[in-house]
Amino acid sequence: MDQTPFRHPFLPTLYDIDAAGVLFFGHLFRHLHDAYEAFMAEVGWPLPEIIAEGRFALPIVHTSADYLLPIRHGQALMVELAVTEIDESGFGIDYRIRDADNRLYATASTRHRCIAPEAQKRCPLPEALRRSLRHYSNSR
Amino acid sequence: MDQTPFRHPFLPTLYDIDAAGVLFFGHLFRHLHDAYEAFMAEVGWPLPEIIAEGRFALPIVHTSADYLLPIRHGQALMVELAVTEIDESGFGIDYRIRDADNRLYATASTRHRCIAPEAQKRCPLPEALRRSLRHYSNSR
Amino acid sequence: MDQTPFRHPFLPTLYDIDAAGVLFFGHLFRHLHDAYEAFMAEVGWPLPEIIAEGRFALPIVHTSADYLLPIRHGQALMVELAVTEIDESGFGIDYRIRDADNRLYATASTRHRCIAPEAQKRCPLPEALRRSLRHYSNSR
Amino acid sequence: MDQTPFRHPFLPTLYDIDAAGVLFFGHLFRHLHDAYEAFMAEVGWPLPEIIAEGRFALPIVHTSADYLLPIRHGQALMVELAVTEIDESGFGIDYRIRDADNRLYATASTRHRCIAPEAQKRCPLPEALRRSLRHYSNSR
Repeated sequence: MDQTPFRHPFLPTLYDIDAAGVLFFGHLFRHLHDAYEAFMAEVGWPLPEIIAEGRFALPIVHTSADYLLPIRHGQALMVELAVTEIDESGFGIDYRIRDADNRLYATASTRHRCIAPEAQKRCPLPEALRRSLRHYSNSR
Repeated sequence: MDQTPFRHPFLPTLYDIDAAGVLFFGHLFRHLHDAYEAFMAEVGWPLPEIIAEGRFALPIVHTSADYLLPIRHGQALMVELAVTEIDESGFGIDYRIRDADNRLYATASTRHRCIAPEAQKRCPLPEALRRSLRHYSNSR
Repeated sequence: MDQTPFRHPFLPTLYDIDAAGVLFFGHLFRHLHDAYEAFMAEVGWPLPEIIAEGRFALPIVHTSADYLLPIRHGQALMVELAVTEIDESGFGIDYRIRDADNRLYATASTRHRCIAPEAQKRCPLPEALRRSLRHYSNSR
Repeated sequence: MDQTPFRHPFLPTLYDIDAAGVLFFGHLFRHLHDAYEAFMAEVGWPLPEIIAEGRFALPIVHTSADYLLPIRHGQALMVELAVTEIDESGFGIDYRIRDADNRLYATASTRHRCIAPEAQKRCPLPEALRRSLRHYSNSR
């Protein structure tokens, strides 16, 4: 990530923590998606509008995450988000979870594919969206 | 609840428990709703069909819950469900959370109102649904 | 609520909305609790510290909510929070969910009881905490 | 997966579905973990006991998932679980989500590392646990 990434705060709540005393691994994805929703609004493509218009959808077809350090209740963290691999049919997002001392707690990625909601078939990623995403891409 | 209630198992998971070591109060509602979904399927009105048909919706307009004993990870519990107060515009559900020794951990209720999804206006509860619900009502 | 309430933003996410197209009623409680966590930090009693110290816990023993208007994806809402009924053994919180036009979408309440975590018995609410809460109480 | 896998039902609920009308990708992990909790109980290592005893913990250090077909409200699915790569310090789990017609909706994996909870350091996977896991391993 050599481009300035998009940043979104992540303050783990009481209910993010599980019976083992650390973040439930599956709850990370809520926070990643919060950052992604904020990012899409920031670049001019708010998800509620994309869904309401219904021209295309951007479902996640792949995700992965690595958990490097335990995440605890109330730790002030930051999700850093950068766009990767924009192509004809979709794009990728990389996420890094850091604290204020730049310590890395987790990394993750999502792959989004453009589909036509009615047909549930792939559709080309709109060129205007591609341009918006490129500003936050680390592979321009 | 003098009628035999509908029963649905509730086994609190790792992620139902929060940083304080007990069930997060808000997660109870997922489990109540699981019991309600199972109940509606049992009485012949599965929610996915009601939603797909789109003739009416049954949003929850009120809920309350009392937490009597702490609920912990892996405790084998049961949700007991009974229908209350069926009227023109909706119905109520009472829930009791018990263990195998009949100890009461929580009680809760939901109130469902029949609405026409398009207009977001009240509509009368279909008579056929009312009949189905009455079998599990404790106030026949 | 005649006192200035504590305010916390609530922007319903993609996953707050359910198969019926509106906020899942149970997800309201996550957002109420986010407001409560932010409030407790604001008044000098952050939950992670209370839990780490272990002198007392403040479990929710009762909650209720009324859903007045459907809440949709991306609607910019605000949780207004005010303390009610502080007594020997606990306190209540009232919540109101409004949009920027002051339209009321939901109201809710929680009742917290002070307990000694080890014994799981009631303990008196610390006087210093009571004083902190009183600043946001609408029943001074 | 040539061994008979462990199976756990997965019936997507109202609140598993998001504003786009399909399973929220992050909610898959709750259901994978439900299958994992049921599996661990089945092989004699219930998570609540492992946590209560506190000798070791099995946090997830990596996960990935591929979403092949949209998952909708009320679809009767099955999580198939098989153990992979048991080694000194941990083990992997593979998951496949299928319907009754054997159609594949998603695949996923988790990697668990054995740690000593106090020190937050790796510890060897207990030999007895390794033996229990091997019965469901596809790489014996």
